Amino acid sequence: MERLYLYDTTLRDGQQTQGVQFSTTEKIQIAEMLDQLGLDYIEGGWPGANPTDSEFFENAPKTRAKMTAFGMTKRTGRSAENDDVLAQVMNANTSAVCLVGKSSAFHVSDALGITKAENTANIAASFSHITGQDREALFDAEHFFDGYKADPDYSLETLHAAMEAGARWVVLCDTNGGTLPNEIHEITKAVIASGISGENVAIHTHDDTANAVACSLAAIDAGARQIQGTLNGLGERCGNANLTTLIPILLLKEPYASKFETGVTIENLQTLTHISRTLDDILNRVPLRQAPFVGSSAFAHKAGLHASAILKNPSTYEHIEPHIVGNERVIPMSNQAGQSNLRKRLSDAGLSVKKGDPALGFLLDEIKEREAQGYSYDTAQASFELLARKALGQLPTFFEVKRYKVTVERRKNKYDKMISLSEAVVVLKVDGEKKLSVSESMDDTGSDRGPVNALSKALAKDLGQYQEMIDDMRLVDFKVRITQGGTEAVTRVIIDSADSKGNRWSTVGASPNIVDASFEALLDAIQWKLIRDTSEKVHK
Amino acid sequence: MERLYLYDTTLRDGQQTQGVQFSTTEKIQIAEMLDQLGLDYIEGGWPGANPTDSEFFENAPKTRAKMTAFGMTKRTGRSAENDDVLAQVMNANTSAVCLVGKSSAFHVSDALGITKAENTANIAASFSHITGQDREALFDAEHFFDGYKADPDYSLETLHAAMEAGARWVVLCDTNGGTLPNEIHEITKAVIASGISGENVAIHTHDDTANAVACSLAAIDAGARQIQGTLNGLGERCGNANLTTLIPILLLKEPYASKFETGVTIENLQTLTHISRTLDDILNRVPLRQAPFVGSSAFAHKAGLHASAILKNPSTYEHIEPHIVGNERVIPMSNQAGQSNLRKRLSDAGLSVKKGDPALGFLLDEIKEREAQGYSYDTAQASFELLARKALGQLPTFFEVKRYKVTVERRKNKYDKMISLSEAVVVLKVDGEKKLSVSESMDDTGSDRGPVNALSKALAKDLGQYQEMIDDMRLVDFKVRITQGGTEAVTRVIIDSADSKGNRWSTVGASPNIVDASFEALLDAIQWKLIRDTSEKVHK
Repeated sequence: MERLYLYDTTLRDGQQTQGVQFSTTEKIQIAEMLDQLGLDYIEGGWPGANPTDSEFFENAPKTRAKMTAFGMTKRTGRSAENDDVLAQVMNANTSAVCLVGKSSAFHVSDALGITKAENTANIAASFSHITGQDREALFDAEHFFDGYKADPDYSLETLHAAMEAGARWVVLCDTNGGTLPNEIHEITKAVIASGISGENVAIHTHDDTANAVACSLAAIDAGARQIQGTLNGLGERCGNANLTTLIPILLLKEPYASKFETGVTIENLQTLTHISRTLDDILNRVPLRQAPFVGSSAFAHKAGLHASAILKNPSTYEHIEPHIVGNERVIPMSNQAGQSNLRKRLSDAGLSVKKGDPALGFLLDEIKEREAQGYSYDTAQASFELLARKALGQLPTFFEVKRYKVTVERRKNKYDKMISLSEAVVVLKVDGEKKLSVSESMDDTGSDRGPVNALSKALAKDLGQYQEMIDDMRLVDFKVRITQGGTEAVTRVIIDSADSKGNRWSTVGASPNIVDASFEALLDAIQWKLIRDTSEKVHK
Repeated sequence: MERLYLYDTTLRDGQQTQGVQFSTTEKIQIAEMLDQLGLDYIEGGWPGANPTDSEFFENAPKTRAKMTAFGMTKRTGRSAENDDVLAQVMNANTSAVCLVGKSSAFHVSDALGITKAENTANIAASFSHITGQDREALFDAEHFFDGYKADPDYSLETLHAAMEAGARWVVLCDTNGGTLPNEIHEITKAVIASGISGENVAIHTHDDTANAVACSLAAIDAGARQIQGTLNGLGERCGNANLTTLIPILLLKEPYASKFETGVTIENLQTLTHISRTLDDILNRVPLRQAPFVGSSAFAHKAGLHASAILKNPSTYEHIEPHIVGNERVIPMSNQAGQSNLRKRLSDAGLSVKKGDPALGFLLDEIKEREAQGYSYDTAQASFELLARKALGQLPTFFEVKRYKVTVERRKNKYDKMISLSEAVVVLKVDGEKKLSVSESMDDTGSDRGPVNALSKALAKDLGQYQEMIDDMRLVDFKVRITQGGTEAVTRVIIDSADSKGNRWSTVGASPNIVDASFEALLDAIQWKLIRDTSEKVHK
């Protein structure tokens, strides 16, 4: 087996994503995650470029992976030893150092305004300096592919200058992301034909044509043996090559799986979905449903024909088993699905219904009608289950809602400042007893969180014997969508809840009145939790 | 130039996206958009499979593109003429018909449970039936690549059966999305070598390994001449090949740009970003920032080195000019280019500000800060104008909001039925006079339209001397989006308003409290209207 090296730049190039700004603590957490996954190199940032990156290197975790500092080749008119920017990079004391330098004649003249010979000399001097201090050196050959197309000789000259000065790797960068896979393949082959071993060639691509993964594979096919990328494809513009996609391809797909080994084991691959979602959690981003391998839709089978075949044999419509990457199969309910899909979903919820049971037809009609009103049961599995239980006469009544009232007020406070405050009163009947609860929308910091927040708190405030179960649940996501649009708009609310037992469930409500829609979804969330906690027989 | 045909399946395969459910009206709107863009085929859905698809074909718009009905090959044990599922597809009377059939021996035995010969006969009979009725026929060869790898002879046999029965196209489908570009290339070449002209070969890929675009290009390289995909890469699981990415590649990138022509002109390519965003609007999805070509980050330059080089020469860090696809360059708001963009936007609103005016810097900071809070001024031009007027000291005060209060109540009515009702009280100061208005959320039919409706009516009920102007405006759309997600969610409300003079304007509000966010957007909408109507000098 040949060794392929994986180089992560989430903490450096990934930070160039619009809207992304890591803190030092977050960088440390991500570095540890990458190390556990089995990456070979972790590029931590550019020491000296900003306070966060500098602080990260001062506190960098001990990793099995080679911690790498990023910087740039020395500037013209000073020695490598006297370049203060380079000095800060070296002072981070990492075992590996990656320096970006120009490998395109156009950029040498137009962006730097120096001669080609000066640029080559800067590269040579910088790499002699690094390797003289016993660091592993990588030359990040910026604009390599665009440069090669215009002036191949000069672009190759820059690579050879770095190699002759002792660089371990030359990193072929498609900086602007416009090069297609075939060209990446040809040019990478030309680099190797020029006398640089594939063992020293790394590939760094961007997703501006949605080909970052294909371009990385094309470079491996041509002989490159290091792949650079980021988790979840973070990065400048459209992002870098997505390691969350590349890693499973390299481990599971031919010809790569038989030919190469990486530092990531097949066991660790099972943590991939979790790692991807954790990164989104850290960034407070909604995970991309359609993401290959790790997205929540990656193994969702909506089409009726697909769903029924999947039930017979999952390999009919799945290219890999979802659990291999820590993901799971989803058969969403929708008005396109048939009865067999429905029975599968019911049995997932612990409800077994015989084939041909008239309740199935009734339930399908009910779902169809409610979807026409604005409900959606694709993702709201818990609300689906409650609807099914009702149709099957298996829905216990834990409590009854008598009425509620929510007030939203905006007025001036005593300091003459406009403030908002919501208040909710909920009247329930639990165990034959009437219970009035009131809550307001203020959070711990004194900020108004709105009417749904007040209502949610009032509803969960006093549920008698069920209180302990309810205290264990929390709202983790709240999504609103206007269906139909216009002034006749219906609001659909989807609520995700979670508890300490590791359950996570989704419920839906729909109404022209957003408060009502939210209330419905909240009620369903509570009911589902009570069913789970009070029943032994029913399991997820 | 050779002709490449573009086949869109947004309305059929795109509808398999989790959470996507088009209405008939939306389908018509999307079909018209696709036709204007210049697609060759529009697959409208599966007539008879569900009410929406049937209704769409009954009301399908007249298009230059070939409207295509999707269905499946006839079932075993009945003739093509007597297959009711096929009959419904034919009855849609489209000029082209695409039928899915099995082209994998494993699926013939395992999913259908029939013999290979029976399956081949079903394909042959179905296509004879279609072509006998003078329809253009496409054979959607399901699981073709996986089938070919296990039993190449049988997979080719199914293609030839369709071709011999008169099919115009065989569509090679990588149904499960697991095949990599090199394999797609080899197998497509083998199909052509088996005697089917590339002029009859179409490619249909999925993005399960993030290679759908690369696989489509690999098939074209091998000789295929029709590409199937969806707008924004909608579709089952990880989605289909993204036409929004493929179209600019085919028109702008070599070797495709010089070798091929499609029905999409370079002029129409400029509408691509708008089309992509409109589709997201219809689906109320947050547009994917990192989307190639059309994403709002696709030409955003965050890295300091990149941004400064871009100012010298955009080609230093851009693979194409953003305006070619109707997109725009984004550079940090604080720099000079940000200011010139801003001045352009201000002059669009009739506000002329001198270069270097300190108000520009102040306004840019204000926008940045508000966008971080959840506001968005991309589309809400009217709210942008109000913000600018405030910064420039040109915002007239028409009235003052003293306070408001909204009550949402759900309780039993006298018939013991649960009903909801909202009521809003707004207190304003107009012309030095205090005005209290109250409205409820009931519409003419007696249905509750919710708290925002009540608030909107109360706010517009008595505005003194401005009442006539306000009576002339109406709410035409209301969009809600949760930004950030999670329990700290902020709600962004965008309201579109219109008046009898043909003005249409958008305003934005953002708050953790949805009622407050709506109120802000409503207030902005009224203020904009009053500025327009009271001022002669200011024009749209």
